Amino acid sequence: MSKYQDIREAAYQANMELPKLNLVIFTFGNVSAADHDLGVFAIKPSGVPYDELSPAKMVIVDFDGKVIDGELRPSSDTKTHAVLYTHCKDIGGISHTHSTYATAWAQSLRDVPIYGTTHADHNTVDVPCAQPMNNKMIQGDYEYQTGFQILNCLQERGFDYHEVEMILVGSHAPFTWGKTAGKAVYNSAVLESIAQMALLAEQINPQCVRLKESLIKKHYERKHGPDSYYGQ
Amino acid sequence: MSKYQDIREAAYQANMELPKLNLVIFTFGNVSAADHDLGVFAIKPSGVPYDELSPAKMVIVDFDGKVIDGELRPSSDTKTHAVLYTHCKDIGGISHTHSTYATAWAQSLRDVPIYGTTHADHNTVDVPCAQPMNNKMIQGDYEYQTGFQILNCLQERGFDYHEVEMILVGSHAPFTWGKTAGKAVYNSAVLESIAQMALLAEQINPQCVRLKESLIKKHYERKHGPDSYYGQ
Amino acid sequence: MSKYQDIREAAYQANMELPKLNLVIFTFGNVSAADHDLGVFAIKPSGVPYDELSPAKMVIVDFDGKVIDGELRPSSDTKTHAVLYTHCKDIGGISHTHSTYATAWAQSLRDVPIYGTTHADHNTVDVPCAQPMNNKMIQGDYEYQTGFQILNCLQERGFDYHEVEMILVGSHAPFTWGKTAGKAVYNSAVLESIAQMALLAEQINPQCVRLKESLIKKHYERKHGPDSYYGQ
Amino acid sequence: MSKYQDIREAAYQANMELPKLNLVIFTFGNVSAADHDLGVFAIKPSGVPYDELSPAKMVIVDFDGKVIDGELRPSSDTKTHAVLYTHCKDIGGISHTHSTYATAWAQSLRDVPIYGTTHADHNTVDVPCAQPMNNKMIQGDYEYQTGFQILNCLQERGFDYHEVEMILVGSHAPFTWGKTAGKAVYNSAVLESIAQMALLAEQINPQCVRLKESLIKKHYERKHGPDSYYGQ
Repeated sequence: MSKYQDIREAAYQANMELPKLNLVIFTFGNVSAADHDLGVFAIKPSGVPYDELSPAKMVIVDFDGKVIDGELRPSSDTKTHAVLYTHCKDIGGISHTHSTYATAWAQSLRDVPIYGTTHADHNTVDVPCAQPMNNKMIQGDYEYQTGFQILNCLQERGFDYHEVEMILVGSHAPFTWGKTAGKAVYNSAVLESIAQMALLAEQINPQCVRLKESLIKKHYERKHGPDSYYGQ
Repeated sequence: MSKYQDIREAAYQANMELPKLNLVIFTFGNVSAADHDLGVFAIKPSGVPYDELSPAKMVIVDFDGKVIDGELRPSSDTKTHAVLYTHCKDIGGISHTHSTYATAWAQSLRDVPIYGTTHADHNTVDVPCAQPMNNKMIQGDYEYQTGFQILNCLQERGFDYHEVEMILVGSHAPFTWGKTAGKAVYNSAVLESIAQMALLAEQINPQCVRLKESLIKKHYERKHGPDSYYGQ
Repeated sequence: MSKYQDIREAAYQANMELPKLNLVIFTFGNVSAADHDLGVFAIKPSGVPYDELSPAKMVIVDFDGKVIDGELRPSSDTKTHAVLYTHCKDIGGISHTHSTYATAWAQSLRDVPIYGTTHADHNTVDVPCAQPMNNKMIQGDYEYQTGFQILNCLQERGFDYHEVEMILVGSHAPFTWGKTAGKAVYNSAVLESIAQMALLAEQINPQCVRLKESLIKKHYERKHGPDSYYGQ
Repeated sequence: MSKYQDIREAAYQANMELPKLNLVIFTFGNVSAADHDLGVFAIKPSGVPYDELSPAKMVIVDFDGKVIDGELRPSSDTKTHAVLYTHCKDIGGISHTHSTYATAWAQSLRDVPIYGTTHADHNTVDVPCAQPMNNKMIQGDYEYQTGFQILNCLQERGFDYHEVEMILVGSHAPFTWGKTAGKAVYNSAVLESIAQMALLAEQINPQCVRLKESLIKKHYERKHGPDSYYGQ
């Protein structure tokens, strides 16, 4: 059995979650699963419909974005994944979708404000929207630069990728990550949900205010703090 | 057969309705079913996906929130359920979701105005939004205090829990209840529907006005009054 | 075989379309099918979930609203259906739902403006919203008066029920009708679709204008005029 | 086997995609597949529900709109398809729907602005909205003139039908096309998605601006340029 079998299987399963969760149509999205010991990740092949995927079709790529194993061309966003894995050693999976509400926020170039506990259960901050790159970076090695666009935004905001596992790439769409590919996809769905609720909250009350700090802290810590009491 | 079998089955069935009614994603919600004679309720285990649930996995908890039977940790919202059962002896089920529209209203800190007969079929008042607790209560026994946040809001408004079976916990999400766990979930779906329609009605007509009193009374009483003629 | 078998079957089939078309949740809607020769109609029993319906459970009622055959209580809206059948001899079916967008327009007390050809394919006018009855009528024989509220609105606007097969009962919800129960349900779904599009069109362009008369006439007549060329 | 078998099968398969992609209800849409060598196309029969279609029911029509083979009447929009095939020799399929968001934009008489990379992956321009015809054209050979309304709009804007494969017919609904009938339907779904996101982006940020040129060019070219690297 191939040493890549586990990440191929993980990437396949996580990719197949995207259409089930209504996060993609056609081929608009890709998930990868990394093995940091081997220095590689498995990623969806480019432009292949979800119902034609199989674990064997996942492409194995190293952290420089070079194909190591597999017969298909990897996702066109592969270099963005590679940059993130290179700089974030605890990320085991990355998910990229064009889900409706999160993408609309990305297009609007606004952060998603933290309006409720659903958001605070996952993050303590507004979901950042990384502003578009300058023209030179776009015209250059675009997908590689998108990785740095994400890393730079996190750094400028002072965010730790262990705590903030989702971002909007301005004018484009969301990227999310996590310890596993499954967790990355989970974060894609959470982001879509809180993006929709945030727009609705503003429509219901244009004077809607951010969640108070004590509630942000309480909800985040009951799920993620040292004394967390959520889950088994 | 365990004396808890009935409430375990009721809680299980009601929890399984939540994803079918599109009221939750992942593990964002929990339903309980109470046996007031035994002084206990059955509730969803914390953080367990709906498709992994079974009646046997429902956790039996007393009205102080102490686990009486079951191998899993109960929902993190268990104490809120416990407080409500303690103070409302006719409630047989409680449902908590983060359904999209009801949660957006909760985030906006606004009551859901009674704009139509769909609302009046179930309530004669705007669905109340309990304003967020003070910081001390949040930092203390949060889920326990959430129960009192709900009870206090009903009391301040002069609402009877037999007649108003739904509330928005401000900045958080809805709680609903009823004589059975099934009725509590029914109320969650009704609230989601009227919350969506209320936003749409305001968007269609920003000068939209509350339903007139005679229609509120007529619709509520034909379903719930002494001479009700709805149903079998 | 009962002489009511045909309308029971037609009413059953048409009622079952409502949840499939996402026009109702729980028991929020009812469809009837009439036999004008027998002077009766078959209608959904009150408060019975759609998945428990069968043709035999449809209740046979005469045009005064009196139950003629069947063991269950008919829909609470039965008298509204009876009034419409009494005064509109060419109506073979009536559908009542609380579908999301049409109901929101009814709550807003606005007519649905004719903004596009989807609307003109079915109607040449704004879908009328009958303003709420006065208190005396509401407190009296409410469902009976609702029938006249609909008929009076059509008359005041100068609309022929053969051509305008849908209306919003203000503050309440839509009623639609047609030559058959199936056509009535079709009209419920069409109304829901054009109600949603009309709101969206106003959101996209607040200066959105009504469809020009020549397009209204063209689209309506190619489907319904003497030289219609739509369909087989 | 008939020489029309291939286009009948292609048209059938593409029509059946419309309800699966939630782009139509009832019979509100039609797709055709052309054989330019034979000078004919296969199109959906008029007013026939999707679940009653079969390849054999597709109607074969020549580029003048005359029925060549088939027992049913072709779609009422057949002449629009015929005009487009006559003037655009590289189009192999055409799709027409009344999908919710694209139709709402058509009703609003606005182009869909290019706000994000999802749009730029398919087009480099705002999706054009062809303004309604004058009354004389509407009253004349309407569907034939609709074809010219589309062609004229493309010409006025300086758009090449190879690159801009989607348009809104003002007050009416979208038409899309492509090398195959399947591609035409794909474009219908893409248009619906970007139409929804564009409205949402404007709601999230009323000062939302068009995508910058460098991003438009980058995204379009990585999928469609001479050095494209998307897909297999």
